[in-house]
Amino acid sequence: MKIYEPGSKALSKDEYERRIELLRPKIVNAHFKMRKGNSPVIVVISGVEGAGKGEVIHALNEWLDPRGTETHSFWLPTEDERRRPHYWRFNQAMPGRGRVGILFGSWYTDPIIQRVEGLKHKDFHAQLQSICNFEEMLALDGAVFLKLWFHISKKVMKERMDDIDRHPELHWHMLPVRKKMLATYEKYHEISSEALNETDGALAEWHFVDSSCDRFRNLTAANLILQALETAGKSAKPHVPKAKHLATSIPNVVSRLGSVNLNKKIPDNEYDELLPKYQSRLTRLAWRMFKRRKSLLAVFEGWDAAGKGGAIRRVTQSLDPRLYQVVGFSAPNDEEKAHHYLWRFWRTLPVSGQTTIFDRSHYGRVLVERVEGYARVDEWARAYDEINEFEKHIAQGGYAIAKFWLQISQEEQLKRFKERERVSFKQYKITPEDWRNRDKWPRYEEAVEEMLLRTDTDVAPWTVVPATDKRTARITVLKTLCRTLEDFLDRE
Amino acid sequence: MKIYEPGSKALSKDEYERRIELLRPKIVNAHFKMRKGNSPVIVVISGVEGAGKGEVIHALNEWLDPRGTETHSFWLPTEDERRRPHYWRFNQAMPGRGRVGILFGSWYTDPIIQRVEGLKHKDFHAQLQSICNFEEMLALDGAVFLKLWFHISKKVMKERMDDIDRHPELHWHMLPVRKKMLATYEKYHEISSEALNETDGALAEWHFVDSSCDRFRNLTAANLILQALETAGKSAKPHVPKAKHLATSIPNVVSRLGSVNLNKKIPDNEYDELLPKYQSRLTRLAWRMFKRRKSLLAVFEGWDAAGKGGAIRRVTQSLDPRLYQVVGFSAPNDEEKAHHYLWRFWRTLPVSGQTTIFDRSHYGRVLVERVEGYARVDEWARAYDEINEFEKHIAQGGYAIAKFWLQISQEEQLKRFKERERVSFKQYKITPEDWRNRDKWPRYEEAVEEMLLRTDTDVAPWTVVPATDKRTARITVLKTLCRTLEDFLDRE
Repeated sequence: MKIYEPGSKALSKDEYERRIELLRPKIVNAHFKMRKGNSPVIVVISGVEGAGKGEVIHALNEWLDPRGTETHSFWLPTEDERRRPHYWRFNQAMPGRGRVGILFGSWYTDPIIQRVEGLKHKDFHAQLQSICNFEEMLALDGAVFLKLWFHISKKVMKERMDDIDRHPELHWHMLPVRKKMLATYEKYHEISSEALNETDGALAEWHFVDSSCDRFRNLTAANLILQALETAGKSAKPHVPKAKHLATSIPNVVSRLGSVNLNKKIPDNEYDELLPKYQSRLTRLAWRMFKRRKSLLAVFEGWDAAGKGGAIRRVTQSLDPRLYQVVGFSAPNDEEKAHHYLWRFWRTLPVSGQTTIFDRSHYGRVLVERVEGYARVDEWARAYDEINEFEKHIAQGGYAIAKFWLQISQEEQLKRFKERERVSFKQYKITPEDWRNRDKWPRYEEAVEEMLLRTDTDVAPWTVVPATDKRTARITVLKTLCRTLEDFLDRE
Repeated sequence: MKIYEPGSKALSKDEYERRIELLRPKIVNAHFKMRKGNSPVIVVISGVEGAGKGEVIHALNEWLDPRGTETHSFWLPTEDERRRPHYWRFNQAMPGRGRVGILFGSWYTDPIIQRVEGLKHKDFHAQLQSICNFEEMLALDGAVFLKLWFHISKKVMKERMDDIDRHPELHWHMLPVRKKMLATYEKYHEISSEALNETDGALAEWHFVDSSCDRFRNLTAANLILQALETAGKSAKPHVPKAKHLATSIPNVVSRLGSVNLNKKIPDNEYDELLPKYQSRLTRLAWRMFKRRKSLLAVFEGWDAAGKGGAIRRVTQSLDPRLYQVVGFSAPNDEEKAHHYLWRFWRTLPVSGQTTIFDRSHYGRVLVERVEGYARVDEWARAYDEINEFEKHIAQGGYAIAKFWLQISQEEQLKRFKERERVSFKQYKITPEDWRNRDKWPRYEEAVEEMLLRTDTDVAPWTVVPATDKRTARITVLKTLCRTLEDFLDRE
């Protein structure tokens, strides 16, 4: 953490303006340069009530090129934001590469206020840990953080609040509840100090700015934004200590793929009985989830031609079309590429009460992107933790999560590819790429095993589905979904 | 309107399956082909309760390639959707070019239900007119509409509802309120017939499908989706009758640009008095708007170097950063390009209570796109009506709208360009393109005059701001905004 305090001699208006005028062309040039780079700059504006956070935002907007800057205020969440995982709105607001995002209020606001109001220390600490993970994830992806904490003493706060009371017409903000602010000053100070200390790191450092003098405060902000823009302009991804972020080799465990009985086959009469049974169970469960405003995320991954589409359709057939969406993922578009790879998956999460089905998913990062080399080793290696964290956020947002890997043998895949080439309306399903992917089977297999090992969590467990017999696969999926929802509804 | 009725002979299961199997490869191929084209296919699924709309959606999702298909259900709007203009959620859901969007429920649902419940005929008619405009706008942009109305008789409806009552476990939907549905059957039928007739047109034709036989219903849907995909695959933009869509020459009116007194100059002492006066008035008005959950859209257009940025900053300085967003528009990204040009402007509208400032705007269509030839003549010529319709929707959504054109002379612009080249932190503001645009001054002038003439409406009036003296411009903008909000709050 860096601390900035005004000198004993007050900064004169002339001197302030002279120094700002010197900085402005530099800021403009640095901003121009970083726009072509790979890094977004994320400016977190926080601090004590009355320290002038809004004034700093106005100043930043004056200095920066508006075409590359966006300001997001996190105030009271809207109803639809409340009906999504807590971090959803923060993810939505993240600036793309080459852009500056100024955040007024942030992921720090709620934990600190809740702790002031009595949140347990353990839960407060867990929230700070989530913040560290979130910031680290973005920083490792290239984001440059500028976290600013504007501080004033209780005495200065009181003076400023008195001034607002006397001249409300000179201020753009709502009158804060003065008594309450002053009464909780010490507690707030103590708790935010703890938050700052715990979330201060090399990848996202805090800057603690004494804001008793407005000019010093603004000048400090100007200097710091210049530094941040220059860092982003260099677009060097931060140095990642290999030992920490490279996945170690997989422990010598029993293979999950190998332990599946691929010969499993449901007799026809049993299927005809089980399919409607599970489908109607799922229908009713989906309505119960809807009524309790709870959601389901079902992730489908598997070998090409393993039967994902057919399994998904047996699920959706039992759902009211108003209650679900199927999201298919292929290559990201340019807006999606400009963000962290998880951004586009966050984006799709609907308000509570819905079922979302991912036809392929964020696991692409540790499957196709790993095997084809679209992601660097350190990138996919740290993705396991990032994905677990993503799913934890979703689970905390009131979701049940089920993840399916549809498993077939390489021989079975070959049979199906050939079959597809014969059946005219299935031809579109098979491309030269599918054939190429087949050659990399062992490397995909390795990636799948590691994925199953590292991302099989309590809140988001994997089910490996034997899929040689499509009917077995479908019943397994339906049964698992029913049990997942029943357990979830019992537990919640 | 085309009407489809089953023959006297029932369609056997075998015959149905045989014909579907013949259609499926054709659908798949047509879908594959249209994905590379310029047209989205918009499938509107509507009709009588119990006619099997959901079943058709399940079937369509089985036949189409999931990677190019999205299904949107418009059911109860969420809180955040209610806090935006009514058409916002429809716009958000529009498929991009080369994609199929299946809409369960649509812009037809509310007008028909409201009319059944007593909406005045005049207002019903106005809503149908809005629908025609909306669909025409998209169709002229290349969208292929497939509007399906699934019909059953009251007798069949009663039978089906009885069946649901007897075997609720066989159905995925919620039980409709049977009594109510049957009691309003005739009225609903009459009103929807009126809606269908009024919104039936060459660009978005209705298909009225007798759905007493499920197999006939599905087979008809399969044939029609194939037709729609094939039409989209040809990607020919619909023939636009020139007489209707080409703007006629501008009537010989007094020039609005010419009638502005560019020599207007506010004395320094007056400015120093007026600026804080209007700013604090605006502060209070913005909070009043927020408290009443009303919104402001302020659009800024003007010559390069006319002082838009400075004027915008004088506005935002008086606003709490939590109450506004400034959206700057430059070239659209690929997702934006895949949609109608207004889509990206719809997108930015926040929930009610906020101020949105457009720094450049949807008027680019009739300014830069017109002059530079990025839009064809018929495209920009019909944009005036489209823009007026867009702003009408916004106004109806509880917005006050103010639009500013900042006017300077060509000589003044030259002076400012040279000044910008001298001042180091303003250099980024001037590019070779700016110089090139200057050469097209008379053609831009013509475009501006036509824009001011054709889009100056009661709900969204233009203010031409004399901007030679920047202070005059700023005060004019602030004063206009204050009056706009005062009038709006008085009126609402």
